[in-house]
Amino acid sequence: MTVQNWFWYMEFDTPTHAHMKGLKRIIHRHRSRYQDIVVAESFDYGLILILDGKTQSSQRDEFVYHEALVHPAMILHGSPRRVLVLGGGEGATLREVLKYTSVEEAVMVDIDEDVVKVSREHLRFMNEGVFEDKRVKLVIGDALDYVFSTRDRYDVIIADLSDPLEGGPAYKLYTVEFYRRVAEIVGDTGVFITQATSPTNTPRTHAIIYRTLREVFKYVAYYHIFIPSFEAAWGFVIASNGRDPRKLEPEHVDRELNHHNIKTRFYDGESHRHMFSVPKHLREYIESVDEISTMNNPVYMPA
Amino acid sequence: MTVQNWFWYMEFDTPTHAHMKGLKRIIHRHRSRYQDIVVAESFDYGLILILDGKTQSSQRDEFVYHEALVHPAMILHGSPRRVLVLGGGEGATLREVLKYTSVEEAVMVDIDEDVVKVSREHLRFMNEGVFEDKRVKLVIGDALDYVFSTRDRYDVIIADLSDPLEGGPAYKLYTVEFYRRVAEIVGDTGVFITQATSPTNTPRTHAIIYRTLREVFKYVAYYHIFIPSFEAAWGFVIASNGRDPRKLEPEHVDRELNHHNIKTRFYDGESHRHMFSVPKHLREYIESVDEISTMNNPVYMPA
Amino acid sequence: MTVQNWFWYMEFDTPTHAHMKGLKRIIHRHRSRYQDIVVAESFDYGLILILDGKTQSSQRDEFVYHEALVHPAMILHGSPRRVLVLGGGEGATLREVLKYTSVEEAVMVDIDEDVVKVSREHLRFMNEGVFEDKRVKLVIGDALDYVFSTRDRYDVIIADLSDPLEGGPAYKLYTVEFYRRVAEIVGDTGVFITQATSPTNTPRTHAIIYRTLREVFKYVAYYHIFIPSFEAAWGFVIASNGRDPRKLEPEHVDRELNHHNIKTRFYDGESHRHMFSVPKHLREYIESVDEISTMNNPVYMPA
Amino acid sequence: MTVQNWFWYMEFDTPTHAHMKGLKRIIHRHRSRYQDIVVAESFDYGLILILDGKTQSSQRDEFVYHEALVHPAMILHGSPRRVLVLGGGEGATLREVLKYTSVEEAVMVDIDEDVVKVSREHLRFMNEGVFEDKRVKLVIGDALDYVFSTRDRYDVIIADLSDPLEGGPAYKLYTVEFYRRVAEIVGDTGVFITQATSPTNTPRTHAIIYRTLREVFKYVAYYHIFIPSFEAAWGFVIASNGRDPRKLEPEHVDRELNHHNIKTRFYDGESHRHMFSVPKHLREYIESVDEISTMNNPVYMPA
Repeated sequence: MTVQNWFWYMEFDTPTHAHMKGLKRIIHRHRSRYQDIVVAESFDYGLILILDGKTQSSQRDEFVYHEALVHPAMILHGSPRRVLVLGGGEGATLREVLKYTSVEEAVMVDIDEDVVKVSREHLRFMNEGVFEDKRVKLVIGDALDYVFSTRDRYDVIIADLSDPLEGGPAYKLYTVEFYRRVAEIVGDTGVFITQATSPTNTPRTHAIIYRTLREVFKYVAYYHIFIPSFEAAWGFVIASNGRDPRKLEPEHVDRELNHHNIKTRFYDGESHRHMFSVPKHLREYIESVDEISTMNNPVYMPA
Repeated sequence: MTVQNWFWYMEFDTPTHAHMKGLKRIIHRHRSRYQDIVVAESFDYGLILILDGKTQSSQRDEFVYHEALVHPAMILHGSPRRVLVLGGGEGATLREVLKYTSVEEAVMVDIDEDVVKVSREHLRFMNEGVFEDKRVKLVIGDALDYVFSTRDRYDVIIADLSDPLEGGPAYKLYTVEFYRRVAEIVGDTGVFITQATSPTNTPRTHAIIYRTLREVFKYVAYYHIFIPSFEAAWGFVIASNGRDPRKLEPEHVDRELNHHNIKTRFYDGESHRHMFSVPKHLREYIESVDEISTMNNPVYMPA
Repeated sequence: MTVQNWFWYMEFDTPTHAHMKGLKRIIHRHRSRYQDIVVAESFDYGLILILDGKTQSSQRDEFVYHEALVHPAMILHGSPRRVLVLGGGEGATLREVLKYTSVEEAVMVDIDEDVVKVSREHLRFMNEGVFEDKRVKLVIGDALDYVFSTRDRYDVIIADLSDPLEGGPAYKLYTVEFYRRVAEIVGDTGVFITQATSPTNTPRTHAIIYRTLREVFKYVAYYHIFIPSFEAAWGFVIASNGRDPRKLEPEHVDRELNHHNIKTRFYDGESHRHMFSVPKHLREYIESVDEISTMNNPVYMPA
Repeated sequence: MTVQNWFWYMEFDTPTHAHMKGLKRIIHRHRSRYQDIVVAESFDYGLILILDGKTQSSQRDEFVYHEALVHPAMILHGSPRRVLVLGGGEGATLREVLKYTSVEEAVMVDIDEDVVKVSREHLRFMNEGVFEDKRVKLVIGDALDYVFSTRDRYDVIIADLSDPLEGGPAYKLYTVEFYRRVAEIVGDTGVFITQATSPTNTPRTHAIIYRTLREVFKYVAYYHIFIPSFEAAWGFVIASNGRDPRKLEPEHVDRELNHHNIKTRFYDGESHRHMFSVPKHLREYIESVDEISTMNNPVYMPA
């Protein structure tokens, strides 16, 4: 292999495992109140947003992640009018939400204003027009506070949050107490969906998010998709008290996308079936974990 | 991230992209007539077989690769009696083939005797008992020669070959001329299956293997699965003139596995559905490629 | 070791040896007509100028390299009035030359105007005021052409050139034919000095530069100094027909620096003695090499 | 650069700086009671002994380190009969000591028996015949205990110890209290010499070792030499109450080596002058540090 590049972004998954992405340039770097924010231009993934050394989104495949996160919840609900996005500073989660003409209000709560600013300046392909949309309300603040203090109701809540790391800001947003409050807000017909770490890198954390949501919601399903820039399969969990995500048929997905006139690059009926059909060994493992995360005994993702 | 390891296996996918796996030991290393053969013990993947710097199989997830390669073909056929494996030096492809009691003869043709020897000594979990099985016939030789000179007929042919690299030994085994000869050998009711490079790393190569097989076989399907130690989705193509792999239903897969009393860790009906449901953007790309590989104009995988 | 950085500059000395420097930012990058020009900000070396992936100068220790290259020649001559610098695009070699008030004209010939521009914009600590100095004449062009076509005479010629790589622009500037022309230009009393690659990384190349100069000049000496940002000992060769560099005493060096009122950070009598006293095994090796570089049989540095 | 190797030993000097050495094999690895002990075969340095991830000695250049550590002390003394080596598990320090026929007893105290065993098995070029020499007495134990409890007197004490890391076993062996006890043992005519970390990587630590020894001994000198496998200049400090190392002339060194009939590869008069002539900026820095290390306020090397 002839190495013609000399600048590398080295991302450690574990102390004994790392990925190296060749870089053309570091477009932007500064430390916000919360984290080290970088936009880098890579050879193989285009622009990458990197927070505290972790890949958040890449130009090449962010559409896979964001479509996988948003559409199953929107389609499961059927006609969402009010949507709450927790995290999602790049704006791409909102971008997918706003494709539904049924949406009247979309509130996004992100703790770090600088991520929004940097994304608007350097990553416009993720948020073009989104923050100017009259349906959007941007709240800079803590998602935990917002969820516990709001009096509003939402049809769909989408948790596009950082991982539940020890000492990090997000681990409380993966606990049974938090999910109970979310269940109140979405009510009997609403839908909650969350990123749920990687079922291949951190299977126990993924399984506990699923198990914890089962404590609260009647219908819960886990699914995942391979994201090249994460170099891992990435997991999600979807939950509702009124609608069973396991009963979503590929034909229904295609019909609904068509009905709402939604253009997607990744998501359709067959992609949905791919994601929701989970290989046997992962399925057996996830179903075998019987542990929940609570405020007193939170579960942290291994760093 | 606290790095407590100092020995790394660095695998370049492209000149601008690499993976780093922490190593405990290098168990074995020697250069055979054909290649550099290494068995290393890693922290996150157990033992790894590495040929010319490329991960072939890891203790942690080789079952995913080998089950994904073997079972769709065996199940599609229904009652294979004679099976030909091209490549597959570790013995794990044979291990899966021999689970079918209908199999009367399994011939394996691998060019490098040393890979077989090293695997038998250091990677017994992949080939325990396989080479002692009376149904097995091991041929050390060139797969191309074997296929063009044999007068035998096979129900299933499994190509577990190295990638079609320029200057490498394998690229001719991905051409339309080779596939025509394979079609003669498996006849109207037989099945051919081949590893087909990564649809995410080298999508064009993957698509051309599919397109080339469509030139020869009536029914052809592509599918893929994420392999953690490859840090990529890995692709396969299955082909037959008598049986349509796209019509294999999950329920049928589960019934057949049960009927043959096959124990698997990864493969079952739901895993089959996962693999054969291909995300939209990959599907559209693969179907759009209209190029075939021939002996005169072979397609090489970008190195 | 806790790794808190994720951006690395990886510099390969050989295909089996590399250095990794943690980067804060990539300040500048563009491809000129001749090469990839980068200015990066590192954690441990400050700003670094990198040409085609190779460290040229770092903020932390460029003074060591440039003082080691310039002062032995200037002091050996005693009262240089006309100085020719070949290469030296950063301007730091000129900076050292201009410290001598005896200098009336300093001509610098560099092939790549962009290196000069980028250095003037981003690396001002290396060239502050230099290019505005009335004594300086900057020629953008090929050093080989300049040397063979000039009718001027110089007291000191300083070769601050890139390494003699195969296919590169510089290897002809290390041949006996080139040195013969240089000897004509500096005459009986002048001094020639050249960077001479690393005596620890590429000892044969270093030795051949010395041996080739001995073919042409009466007095020749090799010396070296450890440069942290090169992570190697770096070598130089000094030559003259009228003055013997081996007879330069530390006390004389200190007296001359004082006499010219030269301020240095690295170079003085004791530093001179350190550089010109060469460890036994290197000395024996260098003296043992009996090969010269010619236009017809040039010697290339192993890449 | 064409990278044809896939196994790397990555050694971090700081969290933002590392070296990568290509490996052929990992010959030996086990964890002793004290540390991770590895013998690896590299492409560029031959066999390397690595303790807790740090290069200790390489086949290519261990002679430079060990000759630089031993001979200045032996020559300064003139006719050493009793020598104490602290650390030095590979045996190469003893190898150099035993070259002096004046030596009647050489005691070596190392805490980790396994380092001695592994070196005797895999690194015989460093200790061939040494441990069978009748003059040698090997003590497995703590150097601190030995020095404070021995009633013996020694002409030369050589400290070939690991660096003074926080939490490590060695930092007390760099304190003023320890040096006072050493001074008692060597008396008025004896010599003490110690490795003193890198003056380029950790200049403050190097300077404090020098400053602390000046608190105790009448004559103290620092010196250093570039060691390719350390990819750094490596420092030493020599001290005595009766003999001034700064007055050792190159001619005297050569005469003494000749007189004792000592064969060396690196060390001679000119190498001595190279090491003891310290570049100006390092010299000024080292002389400027006015801090000493004590048991109560030990100085740790930055990790």
